[in-house]
This record gives sequence, structure tokens and C-alpha cells, in this order.
Amino acid sequence: MHSAPELHRLDLQPIVETALREDIGFGDITTVATVLKDTRAIGIIEANGDGIVAGLPVVVEVFRQLDPTIIVEALRTDGQVVAPGDTIARLVGSARHLLTGERVALNFLQRLSGIATLTNRYVREVSGTRARITDTRKTTPGLRVLEKYAVRVGGGHNHRMDLNHAVMIKDNHIVAAGSISEAVGRVIGSIGHTMTIVVECETIEHVYEALDSGADILLLDNMPLDLLALSVRSIAGRAITEASGSITLGNVSEVAATGVEYISIGALTHSAPSMDIRLNIELSE
Amino acid sequence: MHSAPELHRLDLQPIVETALREDIGFGDITTVATVLKDTRAIGIIEANGDGIVAGLPVVVEVFRQLDPTIIVEALRTDGQVVAPGDTIARLVGSARHLLTGERVALNFLQRLSGIATLTNRYVREVSGTRARITDTRKTTPGLRVLEKYAVRVGGGHNHRMDLNHAVMIKDNHIVAAGSISEAVGRVIGSIGHTMTIVVECETIEHVYEALDSGADILLLDNMPLDLLALSVRSIAGRAITEASGSITLGNVSEVAATGVEYISIGALTHSAPSMDIRLNIELSE
Amino acid sequence: MHSAPELHRLDLQPIVETALREDIGFGDITTVATVLKDTRAIGIIEANGDGIVAGLPVVVEVFRQLDPTIIVEALRTDGQVVAPGDTIARLVGSARHLLTGERVALNFLQRLSGIATLTNRYVREVSGTRARITDTRKTTPGLRVLEKYAVRVGGGHNHRMDLNHAVMIKDNHIVAAGSISEAVGRVIGSIGHTMTIVVECETIEHVYEALDSGADILLLDNMPLDLLALSVRSIAGRAITEASGSITLGNVSEVAATGVEYISIGALTHSAPSMDIRLNIELSE
Amino acid sequence: MHSAPELHRLDLQPIVETALREDIGFGDITTVATVLKDTRAIGIIEANGDGIVAGLPVVVEVFRQLDPTIIVEALRTDGQVVAPGDTIARLVGSARHLLTGERVALNFLQRLSGIATLTNRYVREVSGTRARITDTRKTTPGLRVLEKYAVRVGGGHNHRMDLNHAVMIKDNHIVAAGSISEAVGRVIGSIGHTMTIVVECETIEHVYEALDSGADILLLDNMPLDLLALSVRSIAGRAITEASGSITLGNVSEVAATGVEYISIGALTHSAPSMDIRLNIELSE
Amino acid sequence: MHSAPELHRLDLQPIVETALREDIGFGDITTVATVLKDTRAIGIIEANGDGIVAGLPVVVEVFRQLDPTIIVEALRTDGQVVAPGDTIARLVGSARHLLTGERVALNFLQRLSGIATLTNRYVREVSGTRARITDTRKTTPGLRVLEKYAVRVGGGHNHRMDLNHAVMIKDNHIVAAGSISEAVGRVIGSIGHTMTIVVECETIEHVYEALDSGADILLLDNMPLDLLALSVRSIAGRAITEASGSITLGNVSEVAATGVEYISIGALTHSAPSMDIRLNIELSE
Amino acid sequence: MHSAPELHRLDLQPIVETALREDIGFGDITTVATVLKDTRAIGIIEANGDGIVAGLPVVVEVFRQLDPTIIVEALRTDGQVVAPGDTIARLVGSARHLLTGERVALNFLQRLSGIATLTNRYVREVSGTRARITDTRKTTPGLRVLEKYAVRVGGGHNHRMDLNHAVMIKDNHIVAAGSISEAVGRVIGSIGHTMTIVVECETIEHVYEALDSGADILLLDNMPLDLLALSVRSIAGRAITEASGSITLGNVSEVAATGVEYISIGALTHSAPSMDIRLNIELSE
Repeated sequence: MHSAPELHRLDLQPIVETALREDIGFGDITTVATVLKDTRAIGIIEANGDGIVAGLPVVVEVFRQLDPTIIVEALRTDGQVVAPGDTIARLVGSARHLLTGERVALNFLQRLSGIATLTNRYVREVSGTRARITDTRKTTPGLRVLEKYAVRVGGGHNHRMDLNHAVMIKDNHIVAAGSISEAVGRVIGSIGHTMTIVVECETIEHVYEALDSGADILLLDNMPLDLLALSVRSIAGRAITEASGSITLGNVSEVAATGVEYISIGALTHSAPSMDIRLNIELSE
Repeated sequence: MHSAPELHRLDLQPIVETALREDIGFGDITTVATVLKDTRAIGIIEANGDGIVAGLPVVVEVFRQLDPTIIVEALRTDGQVVAPGDTIARLVGSARHLLTGERVALNFLQRLSGIATLTNRYVREVSGTRARITDTRKTTPGLRVLEKYAVRVGGGHNHRMDLNHAVMIKDNHIVAAGSISEAVGRVIGSIGHTMTIVVECETIEHVYEALDSGADILLLDNMPLDLLALSVRSIAGRAITEASGSITLGNVSEVAATGVEYISIGALTHSAPSMDIRLNIELSE
Repeated sequence: MHSAPELHRLDLQPIVETALREDIGFGDITTVATVLKDTRAIGIIEANGDGIVAGLPVVVEVFRQLDPTIIVEALRTDGQVVAPGDTIARLVGSARHLLTGERVALNFLQRLSGIATLTNRYVREVSGTRARITDTRKTTPGLRVLEKYAVRVGGGHNHRMDLNHAVMIKDNHIVAAGSISEAVGRVIGSIGHTMTIVVECETIEHVYEALDSGADILLLDNMPLDLLALSVRSIAGRAITEASGSITLGNVSEVAATGVEYISIGALTHSAPSMDIRLNIELSE
Repeated sequence: MHSAPELHRLDLQPIVETALREDIGFGDITTVATVLKDTRAIGIIEANGDGIVAGLPVVVEVFRQLDPTIIVEALRTDGQVVAPGDTIARLVGSARHLLTGERVALNFLQRLSGIATLTNRYVREVSGTRARITDTRKTTPGLRVLEKYAVRVGGGHNHRMDLNHAVMIKDNHIVAAGSISEAVGRVIGSIGHTMTIVVECETIEHVYEALDSGADILLLDNMPLDLLALSVRSIAGRAITEASGSITLGNVSEVAATGVEYISIGALTHSAPSMDIRLNIELSE
Repeated sequence: MHSAPELHRLDLQPIVETALREDIGFGDITTVATVLKDTRAIGIIEANGDGIVAGLPVVVEVFRQLDPTIIVEALRTDGQVVAPGDTIARLVGSARHLLTGERVALNFLQRLSGIATLTNRYVREVSGTRARITDTRKTTPGLRVLEKYAVRVGGGHNHRMDLNHAVMIKDNHIVAAGSISEAVGRVIGSIGHTMTIVVECETIEHVYEALDSGADILLLDNMPLDLLALSVRSIAGRAITEASGSITLGNVSEVAATGVEYISIGALTHSAPSMDIRLNIELSE
Repeated sequence: MHSAPELHRLDLQPIVETALREDIGFGDITTVATVLKDTRAIGIIEANGDGIVAGLPVVVEVFRQLDPTIIVEALRTDGQVVAPGDTIARLVGSARHLLTGERVALNFLQRLSGIATLTNRYVREVSGTRARITDTRKTTPGLRVLEKYAVRVGGGHNHRMDLNHAVMIKDNHIVAAGSISEAVGRVIGSIGHTMTIVVECETIEHVYEALDSGADILLLDNMPLDLLALSVRSIAGRAITEASGSITLGNVSEVAATGVEYISIGALTHSAPSMDIRLNIELSE
């Protein structure tokens, strides 16, 4: 089995710091006034719905920044299925700091678990086909590295991370260059050999021209199912195929049935509902 | 009529800069390779669905940072209703920079308009009552100031911005202090006079004790409708009343009918679906 | 007894880092040249005058950033009274790093102890009345969270932390809105329920209008003592009362005698003299 | 006449940005609610006491960051004497942004003018002698570049800016090295030729040893006046002389009368009282 | 002809700001003391050697940050050949700010022009073959985006920008996975479709295994010329070929003659000598 | 023997963080895919050429930031001579993180060791004379503190760190002021006593005028050897002497033979070739 996705502390550190400063402001006055400094507590992170957990390293980082003496014991790992009532993690330490960090930790965990869960539903819909589910750049500003990680946790794959990770030639680039082949030609003249070229195609003519021009990936955008199927057959392995546009849980298996290799879905990151997760804190002293 | 909500550039600047760096990385290689430097274009931001626009100042800031010579002409202002096909704004300038900024501008605008639109649906559900719709701290990490602005644009009101803006005494604070009155007493002993005190109440006994202790706002959490109505009647204006927990578009008007003054809803910010908005770019040269 | 004020590391970290970079520049060349790397030392922080200690967590953070192996043993806690010759803390570790951090640690400790000491003098002046001493926004740019903490350490209370923590309607806001009641009305129409409204009043007419409009706090600004007393009596508990303007150690007890609840004093933070504190370092090897 | 001191925007930018974020938080809700967006105003910065103005470039930067369309017209320049009622500057522009920036602008201007004013009193006390007044590293954390600028504006000179700008050998460095001459020798062996060496001397024996060792500047610390005079005579121009310790407006002229060349005073920056300055805003529309 | 390389202000801004702060510190005291504020000057940037200019947008950014009123008129564009005595750009504005920015502007321009010049020498050595010259990740920490831009300016191409832009499987990855095919298989199982896979090969057996496993690019590392030629022939277009290791201006044409498509050279960025460029400033008033 | 140069973590932290973010981007996908999380490894940093090691504290900081559990055991210290095959340090820990950090660690170590090595060659060329080798401000933007440290490690001395560390009067300053003596006079009127004044001299007349004006250091720029010797003799110890311009390993000993005290060389930092150093990683499990 291949390695689990990884989130490095260098990525987490600034995002979590921003979130904590944003939520705490000049200090958690309620907690400081009502809870004595030395009170200790146990916190139980518990699923309140069904889904795939994603974001435990973020929870660890939240409490590492707030108070490195808090112990976070994960009982699940990112990618595991949970049902209502399942304990995901157990936190032990300062009652004050557990209460102060609760909201930020949950805001991250609920959002990322929601994305992993939705991704996984799509992945399961296309199981048995060769199609892979992939995300887009329609992520929440500032959280891309986390949200794309959650897609991987849910069994999806990542499309390009930013505008510099691959070439994607869309309609306006084609208009500007004059034609698909001129656009691809300009790109080949300037990029390095590790870059791949995606060309967005809306018609079968685009498909033929893009194939001839040397594109690596054809993004078959908003095509009716029969045109999509025809395109995939015509390409016949000479380029990687990707479908996008108007894809839902209701139609994704039909899209996959055309034989297309990748299906990219913006909703994975811009419309995944939060997963319901609680943090129950019990004062222990 | 009171003044429109305002978003200051000091708030926007770091968030937009982070988003642009995240999306552009080492550069938009596709656009630089295919579009000549001097090509100009016109971009039309157009609604693809019904809703309330929110986030135009963010769009302005995106292009100000990318290229201050791009002109952004707003045809709608934040808070206005739009229908499919309505033009929201018109952008004129460098084709390269319009293409490079498109995704980030839309990621913000779609999310914020989604929040304003959902908020507004709740606001309309309770019209004719004295209830006001308010948000929570369940916002996207890093985007709170924008998301709470979108709630105001949609006609909602803001709950506390962070842990330092008001005191909110929840179950654990009460356990730690021993009782509601002890918790409120400790708080009154330490905070300044500009701070308000919210106490979370789940039973009518909590309500009585919180009232006696001097709380300013009673947060009536997860109460059945009849208990909620009883609580509001019992409070009788001696504190501000707020309902929260399990509130949906389906039941919010019944909640409002109890006479409660504020209804706080986490879903406004953690589960608003994106509004569908496009940026159509036409090369002009 | 209620909990002691708290300063969180998230607040301290950037301020201390800025201060250390500012003072050390490209390195403490004197110490590196004259003191061997392994030389160890003991540092004694000692009061040189009478006062209230404030800022020990800042001293701890200074040395944590410079050299986490230095041990800081506090013999006093923030808020305690000290007299000349009293040892406040004992530092043990690298002689080089103790010498390098000395100035920054003292610059913070002397300033914050100065503020706590001055605040405490005002607090003692009004003891026996119900008046509480409170600060203003006239703090040193960049140090507000520390200086307002020092005011709490000295027994004072905090006024609003920034322009977003409470509404304060001053003369210009009233002119812009047309009247006190119009200004308060506009505010009530836009803010959330956790916000309090302060209205600045200079005459008894202002007091009446502000009371009628629904203000929470009346800031009685620069009033002669008899007018202040009259205002407090007229308000009769229907709003919180606060006095400000031209208040000194010489007249504060008379102001308190009017029955006003809060007395705000800019000098606590903009004019507190430094407390005289030394760090005596003894090389131990 | 030599050039006026200069403060570059690179220095001002981060300090002013920090101060504005600190004071404005999530937004100036009072002003947004009560003042219409298009209301314009004129602000008059006026002296309320006697002193030397310092900090006008900071005021300019405050409003440049808040709203670049505000016009700041300086009627005085830094270094000029003002008396109560004198207009220092005139601001014209958005009423909202003038009100929002008022406090931060004044917090800087009052502090820096206070430092320039106090420095200038010392400078005038020693006029007619060859003594120059100089500051120390006892500055407010984060504001050193501004405070040392204010000292220059007041007619003083700057001591080293940070631990890397010059070598200063104090008692502990001498103890660590074994003797003054060993300490100076170690330093000469490691530093570059543009660095000067200051040696702190408390006795006449120190003076002789420091002179012999090649020190450039002798810091005559806490010496009685007669010992100070003897030291200056003994040094006889072979090193630069500086006095420090327990210097006040009451005794500084006597210190200067010893013929010492520099007199360093921590109080210039750690204890200068704020100068009283107002910003009167008049809505113009 | 394809578009010129582009450097966006978002990339330049933080690097230039860091460089200016590093060089200016608390201020250019020499210039402020000796040059009057209003003195104007003209600066001529002039080549002192032969080469390819690279870095003019950085020069523009240096002076934009220091003083936006300085006019920078470029007489050459990045990528043009210059000879000793050629004027590259002309600067007009404040004498003080031209003098203050001179060193930072030249430090960037000399380094980047040096890289472009060296790259171009390699490019000319392989002209007439299909080989392209490409850089590596052996760039100066903090300057990668600029140095890789300079490689493009010199006619080279860019290898991957960072560890996330492409997969590169080296010996240790192969050892960890057990074999080339296992390593490639693991990668294919986890990455998205826009990523390319480079496999480092040192023997012909590696070449065969990597080809079979589905690698996109074979990095033929440190191979003798005959083995390199054999590998290229064996690959026969089924993967992209790249040579690396011990390549110099002396042997690069022989390497290119093997038919290899890309030649990667660390020395382009880690060992390019600075190009000699001067900034002659003439005071105009 | 005097103390070794020191590099403090406050200086290293931001530079290393920038370098790691720049190189790792959204993550080292190759390593995460091919190496299991728990695999451990040993890394041996080994010299591949002759030279002086510099930069070990940077290597330590790279791995401290990436993974604090990695153990870095230094077998050489900065400043020691190494020959091909010598082990410089041994790293033990997570295989993933050793592989991820390898390139950044080497990029720093090779560059800094290159500078120390080149500096040391100059130092050895002038041994037996009183001349000291010193650097300039021609350093890599962003790396000055590290590069100047490497010069010290190689036995050189540091010239001024930035424009604020000493006064250096060059031709344009002289033109602006009217004469050398006027320029020095203006400077003496404004700077503090810890600042030294360097005057650039190209003729013997400059030397005489600079001496008379009170300059501390005469920078004898681009003088032929005989003029340089004459200048040094004429100065006769009344100021410190420094030679600069067109100095190479070939002529530096002749320059030193003139008796000049300091020789400043830009090439130490802008043209030192990288030292060849490897990091051999062996998976241990």
C-alpha cells in the first residue's frame, strides 16, 4: 500500500497562527476570569455524523502553538471512517487552553473532514472504473494546501496546485494565440521539460487539434456524455483525458463510464458541507 | 437609512496578498507564454444565479495588487440583488493580468456572495418579527473579517468577533466556577465596563439564575420551542434574548415567533453554498 | 479571589521578537569578543525603587527566544509590591546570552512596572468608593496588549481595546449624525447585541438625551465636580457612569466622591515614569 | 547649516502598520455607523503646550496607509518651536478616515514631540559648553528608530543604535576577560576598523588602563563631579569623553562644565512626558 | 516570436524589501549628512564588460520602494547583449535616494546578468543541436525566482521550481522503495495527472527499468559520453532525455552531440561570476 | 586565543525559513510517495574538495526547523580546514526529512564554505604583513549576515554592515558638499561619537585634505602601488589606511607590502566559487 498523505509543519504553522490570532484577539477573557490557572481537563473529540476524518495534524498544531504541554492522543488517523459517537482524539492538559483552542481546532477539523467525506463519496461512486476524482483551484483563499490534502485523504487526487505547476490552455489563451496549435507551440517554446500541458476542449475539433499539437492532457469541458465518450475513444490513449463541468454525485458514475481517466470537481472544495464533530471538555480537577 | 457596511483596505490587504501568492506561485506560465504583454481585454463579472452580491471591494483589491492600472467599474454594489445574466462589474486592462487574477477574484466573490445570499434568506424568513439574524465564530480560519462583513451585507448582524469582544459563559466555565452566579461574579470582578456578558442557558433554572446574576444577554441554547417561548416571556426584557442550536430555514420563523431578539446560526458561514458567478474575458486587441 | 491577569505567548512572541531584533542587530559584538562561549552566569533582577512588579512573563519570553536553556526563576509574581533591594527574579545560564538580553528585558520590565505602579496609586486613592480606575487608547503604539495588562496588574480595569470593541460616540459623530439620538439610533441599527454604546457628554442636556436614546455608558467628559455629581445623580443607575479629562492623583479622590463608577486616565499609559529596576549579572565560572 | 534629520518610509511603514492594526482591529464601528461615507472634513493639529514638534512624517504615513487621498499640509516642520494654539498641520479629506486615524497619529506625535522637547531642554542647559547631549538604548521596544530620530530633532545626538553599532565594554565584559586591557585586546583582535570601542570607567585607574589599551571613547559612569573633571583633564583629548549616570536637568550644566564632550541620558527616551497636542476635526459637508 | 520572460511585482516586492532593509539599516547617515534634501541627480547604469542584461525589473522595484518619484528609463531590455560602455538605463530623481539605492540595485543586477550571461554561453555552445540548457535547484537561498528568471533571460529553460513541481526519483528513493519500478509505481498511485516523473539513471539497466515503469523523463546522471549516447538511442523517444553531472563549457557541445534533449547545469546559478556593471551618478543641481 | 565568530538563531531563523519554504513548496511529493514515514537514515556530510568549513549552524537550523528530532553531530567546527573525503557532520533521523532538507542545507553550506575558503586564501597571501583582509557591501541580497560571518570564519574582518554602521564619504558626497573638508564637517556636525568616518581618496591631495578634515579612515581607492605606498607613508599613522579596487590573489601581497592596514575585496562575497560538499544518505531500516 502506498504512503499516507503528509502535511508538514512548515505548511501548518502560519495558517494555524493566523487562525489563533484571529479568534483569540487580545485574549479569552471569559476563560481567564472563570477558570483557575491550574485547572486541568480532558477533551474528547467525537464524531457526530458519518464521514472520513481529515485534519488531525492541524488539531495537533493548534494546541502545540497554544500550549505545548497539552497532550493530543489520536485514536483515529486521517482517512479513517467514523460514525456518530466514535472518539477521534483525546486531549489532556490545561483547562484554560483547551477551552481557548476548542473553536479553532473544530473549525479546521470540521471543514477538512467535510471535504474528505465528500471526496470519498465521489470516489466510491466511480469505483470499478478507471476514473480518478480530482480537485480544482476553487479552494478557500489561504487554505489550499490543507484542502488539497483533505482531497487526498478522501481518496481523490490533486490537480495543479497553482498557476505555475502545469500549463492549462483555456479559451482565452487560444484566442490570444490565434489557435490551439499556436498556443501549444508558444508554450513548448518557453517551458521546461517537467511541465505538462493541459488543453481545454469543448468540441471534437478541439480534441483533434489539441492532440496534434502535442498536448499531454485534454480537459473535456462541459461535454454531453456521448460527445465525451466519442472524445475519449478518439483520443485512444494518445493523451490523458479529463472531464469537467456540471458533475454531480448523480451523474459522476455515468461520466466515469465513458472511460475518461480523471474527473475534476470544484464542489469538493467550494461546497463540501462541514462534518459535525464535537469537542467535549471535562474538567478533571 | 443607515450607512452600508465597510471593509477597510488594512483588512483586505494581507488576506488578498496571501491568496494571490498561493494561487500564482512562481508565475502564471500559461498566460505569459500565450498572451502578448500588451494585449488588452475587457472582463465582465456576471451572475449565473440569484442572490445578493458581496465582496466587490475584495475584487478591487485583487486587481489593485496584481496591476494597479486595471480599471474595475462596479455596476452593482454589495448588498444588491442580482439575477442570472446581470452584470456585476466590468474590468478593463492588461489581458495577462485579468487572466491571472480571475480565479482568486472569483473564489472570494462566490464565497462571500454565497454567505450574503444565505443570510438574506434567513432575514427574509423572520421579517415582520423583531428577531435579528446573527452569525457565530464558526467562520473559515483566516477569513473571519470578510465572512462577518458578508453577513452584514446580507442583512444579518455580527455576534462577537473574537474571544476578547464579549464574555460568553458556557457550561464548562460554569462548572469551573461552581455556578452561574459565581462565574458571572468572577467576570464582573475583572472585566471593564464596555464588555457585555452572555450566559448560555439550557433550562429555565439557568435562565433565572443568569438573570439574577446580572448577565446582559441570555443565550437560550437548543431549547424546544415552548421552553424557548417560556424563557423569553420570563425574561421579560430584563436581558437580551438569543436563540441558538439546530436552527434551519425550515424552523427559523417559528423560532422568531417566540419573540426572541437574536437568532445565531453557524451555518451562515460554515455551510453557505458558493454563489455561481462568472468572469467572461474578451481580448480587445 | 478572582484569577490573576494573563498574558499569552501568542501576544508576547511578535513584540519580543521585534524588540530583540531591534536591539541586537547583526550581533552583540562586545560580548562575543570578550566573553567565552561556555562562561555561565547568574543574573539577579532587583528593585531599585518602590512599586508593583509587572512584566515577568515578558522577561521569560525574552530569554526563551534568545536561549531556551536559560532558567528564569521568578521570586515575585506580577502584581506584588516590591521595595528597593528586593529580588524579583533570578536567571541562570549562558553569560553571553544574559548580557545580550539584559537591556531588552529591562526596557520592558521597567516600563510595565511603571504603569502598574502608577495605576495602583490611583486605585489606592479611590479605595473606599465604588469608583474603578480604567485606561484609554492612549497607549504606546505596538505595546497596547502589554500596557493594558500592566493596568490590570496594578488593579485597574481596561477600557475598550480598540475601535472595534465598543461603540464610542464623540462630538464629531454627533455632528455627523445630527444629534445624539440620531447617532445612537444609527448605531443600534447596525451593531450586534454584544456591543455596548458609550456616549460622550459635556452638558446635562447631553446626559438626558443620551439616556433617552438608549446609551449603555455615559462618558462625562471634562465636567466640573458639581456638574459631574449632578449628572451621576440624574443618571441614577440607568446607565453606567464614567468620568474623564484632567484627572490627576491630586483630584481623583474628589472625582470618585461624586459616585461615578469609572474614571479613565490617559496618563496611566502615556506618562507613567519607568520603575527603576536593575539586572546584576555575576559570572559564575 | 547642516541637513535636517530624515526618517525614511522604509522605517515608518511597518511601525505605523502595526499601530493601525492594533488600534482599529476589525473596524471603527462607531464612525462607519454614524458618519456617511462621502462626508468630508478638515482636521487641525494644534499644540496645546510649549515644545518642539517631532513626528510629522509619521502623521503623513498614518494617513497615507489609511487613505492616500487625505491631504496632509504641514505648517510646521519637525524641530520647530511651538506654543499653545499654534497650528502644526492641516488635514483635508474623508471624515471617516480622519476620525479613524486620529488616535494613532496623536499617540505618535505626542510621544515624539515629548522626546524632542525634553532633549532640547537639556541641549539648552549645556549651550555655551562643548558638551553634546546623547541618548541611550533605553528606548521603547519597537520604536527605537523613531525615538532616536526625535532626539536628533531636539538637537541631541545618537549613541549607538544597537549592540552591533559599536563596542561597549562594561564591568561584566571586563570581569569575563580578566582586565580592561585584555578585554580591549580581544575586541581589537576581532572587530573591523570601522568600529569604535567604548570602555566604561568608574575610577581614575580604569581611565588610565582604558587609555593605554587603545579605547576610543571613555564612558565615565556615575562619577562625582570632581572625579569627572579630573578624568577629563587626565584624558586630555587622547580619547573622547562621555559622562553618564544620575544626570538631571538640575545638574547637567555642572556636568558639562567639567569639559566632558558627551553626556548620555536614558530619561530622554524612557521618561519624556507626552507633549499635549490636539486634532480638531470639523466636518465640512 | 514567443513572449519574453516575466517577473511579477508580487515576486519582487518581498525580496527587494528585505534587501533594502538589510543594506540601509537605521538610515544612510553619510548621504543625509552631506547631500541636501532637494538635490537632484542623474544616474547612468553602464556595462563594464560583455554580457546579457538581466534584472532591470528588479532595479525598477528597488527605486519604486525607495522613492516612487525616481524615473527609471531602460535603454536596454532584459536579454539584450551589451558591451563595455553601453548604457543600460538612466535614472533621474532625488540625489539622496539614488545614492542610497545604488548598492542594492547593482548587487541584484550584477548577479542576475552574470547568470544570464553564463547561461547564454552554454546555449550558444549547443546551438545547432536539439539540446536545451536547463538549471537545477542549486540556487541562492531566497533568490530562486530571480535566478531562474535570469536563466530564461539567457536562453535557458527551467527545471522544476521546487520539490512539489515534479517528481524526481533518485537513488535513495529507489532504495527506500526497493526498485525503480516499485518507486515509480508508488508515485503513480499517489500523484495527480499533471505531474511528470523524472528517474535518475546511472546505468543502462536503470534506463530500461525506468522506461518500463512509465517514467516521463530519464535523468542520465554522470554517464560517460558513449554510455550517454547509447542510452539516448535506446530510449528512442519513449521518454524525454536529460544529462547532468560534470558538465562544463568545455564538454557541453559533446554532450549535446549525443542527441540528449536537456542538459542541466548547477553552475548556472551557483557559480556564475558577477557581471561588471556601474552606476555613475551625476548631481544635477 | 580570541572567541570564535558566532551566528545567533535570531539571525538564522528567518533566512532558513524562507529557504525551506522556497524549496519545498506544497511538499516533497517524491519522498512522501516513495519513503515510508518511519524509515530512518544516516546522513554524512563530506567534503569533496579542500577548503574551510563555514555554515554548520545553518545546517543545524535547517533540520531543527524541518524536524527537531533529527540529530546533527558536527565532526568539524566552522573555521577548520577539510580535505576531500573528510566527514564534516553526521545526521541521524527520519529518512523523509533528511531527504527533504538535503538541498537547502547544502546550498547554504557550499556557498558559505566557498566564501570562507576564498577569504582564507587572501589572508594567507598577506600573512607576515600587518594587513587585514576585509569584505564590502557587495553581498548577496538577503544573506549579508551569513556571508559576513563566513568572511570572519575564513580569518577576514568585516567592513561596515550597512549604511548606518559607519560614514563613508565617496566622490558624490564630496561633490554634493563642495569639498572633502566640507563633507567631513557636515558629518561631524550631525553624527554621534561612536561613528567613524571613512573618506575615499584617489589622489595624494585627497589624502592630505581628508587627514586635515578629521577623517578616521582613508580608503585609498584604485591607487597604483607606488601612490598607495606614498599615501600610507604620508598618513603616518594619523588615520587608518585601507586599500580597495582591482585587488586579486595575484597582487594582494604587493598591496599588503605597502604597509596598508586593511584591504577590502568585493570578490570575497560576490564571486567566491561554491565549495564542493556532499550529503550521502543511507537508509538504516
